[in-house]
Amino acid sequence: MSESSRPAGQSAEAVLSRLAEVLASRRGGDPGRSYVARLFSKGNDAILKKIGEEATETVMAAKDGVAERIVSETADLWFHCLVMLEFHGIRPERVLEELARREGLSGLEEKASRGVATGREPASEEGKE
Amino acid sequence: MSESSRPAGQSAEAVLSRLAEVLASRRGGDPGRSYVARLFSKGNDAILKKIGEEATETVMAAKDGVAERIVSETADLWFHCLVMLEFHGIRPERVLEELARREGLSGLEEKASRGVATGREPASEEGKE
Amino acid sequence: MSESSRPAGQSAEAVLSRLAEVLASRRGGDPGRSYVARLFSKGNDAILKKIGEEATETVMAAKDGVAERIVSETADLWFHCLVMLEFHGIRPERVLEELARREGLSGLEEKASRGVATGREPASEEGKE
Amino acid sequence: MSESSRPAGQSAEAVLSRLAEVLASRRGGDPGRSYVARLFSKGNDAILKKIGEEATETVMAAKDGVAERIVSETADLWFHCLVMLEFHGIRPERVLEELARREGLSGLEEKASRGVATGREPASEEGKE
Repeated sequence: MSESSRPAGQSAEAVLSRLAEVLASRRGGDPGRSYVARLFSKGNDAILKKIGEEATETVMAAKDGVAERIVSETADLWFHCLVMLEFHGIRPERVLEELARREGLSGLEEKASRGVATGREPASEEGKE
Repeated sequence: MSESSRPAGQSAEAVLSRLAEVLASRRGGDPGRSYVARLFSKGNDAILKKIGEEATETVMAAKDGVAERIVSETADLWFHCLVMLEFHGIRPERVLEELARREGLSGLEEKASRGVATGREPASEEGKE
Repeated sequence: MSESSRPAGQSAEAVLSRLAEVLASRRGGDPGRSYVARLFSKGNDAILKKIGEEATETVMAAKDGVAERIVSETADLWFHCLVMLEFHGIRPERVLEELARREGLSGLEEKASRGVATGREPASEEGKE
Repeated sequence: MSESSRPAGQSAEAVLSRLAEVLASRRGGDPGRSYVARLFSKGNDAILKKIGEEATETVMAAKDGVAERIVSETADLWFHCLVMLEFHGIRPERVLEELARREGLSGLEEKASRGVATGREPASEEGKE
């Protein structure tokens, strides 16, 4: 539905890159005037606390199953992930590239085999399928 | 750095849409052969448990501050968010559009003002930038 | 160290029961005058959000490894668990009894075997101790 | 209800101390034969991941509102908190004493005032009860 309102389906997705640039520009800003500048000034733990908080809210929204809230809470979660990435000097494109690496059949089964092997994710034993 | 290795910076970002399509194709698949099919067959709680788990791992990676692990764990977290979105029939583009809505100056201040309303952000000190 | 300052090691542990009674007495109290009354008035999601938040802070404190903060954050986490239990009309003694049930050799192995059933613990290697 | 089934209401609560002793005895045990020994051998991150996981499951159980599951998941969460405390050489009595310190009216208001200092609780409206 939303895709049809955009030319190429690309502009919406580029938001992660644009947002990362906005966040970067907020670093060192006045903590009294910007939520993000304040979060950066509080540091790593304050940012990570928000990730834990927003993850919990995403889980609760998905338990309730109301699409609008799921979208809003997932956006909150990803937003604070972007803040965390910027805090550590990491561009969101790197996360997208990591996801691209796992994309497709081989990627998903590779993901699965990692999960199967340890129950979690030790990717050292990764192999091609 | 990673951007320079791609033609338009777009292909990597479109991964969320492509990944959503791959995930959708896994629904109803053989749980014995695909990690994602198995996750879908287990249902909402199993998916949400993974979000809680991966959020915790993202937080721990960011505490350690090792970029490679931060990227890997954030990818895990976003990946399971995509699984959750697909489980609820929600396209990731909706989350990106919600983020786009909050993008830029007005977006970030709007985010802060929403915080006030919900008591989530001490945004009373928020001002215009 | 702290144990030696108490007669029987019992008074400190009875705090969960006493705290549960204090929390119960706060229900229906003036949200403007008590943190707990306000939390109860906000409802289930607000309480659960705090559990997610305090769990994240406990994880971060344990990553840092500073005992004083670990104690403080774990107390915060258990405190909000008590609020959640009271919200659902559950006495903390029931949780302690569940833990007692799992106590000792049989209890821990039973815990492991439950893990097998739910796929939560890789307990297939579990043996008798 | 459960209280009436016990002589002094104390035996069940002492379970945290007894459980801590059992956990301590598992340290250095054979990871192939005990879930707890294996968790200790995996280390801090593995234990903390379980706390994040069990916190998420506690939140989901409380969303569903089924008492039996709330009790079971809260027990899982506290159990892994005890494992984490033992890993860091901390007795659970210290957490109980911290809770006792906050018990009662003064304790709860102190909790709220701490919130002010850290920006965690909107405690500015706090008053005396």
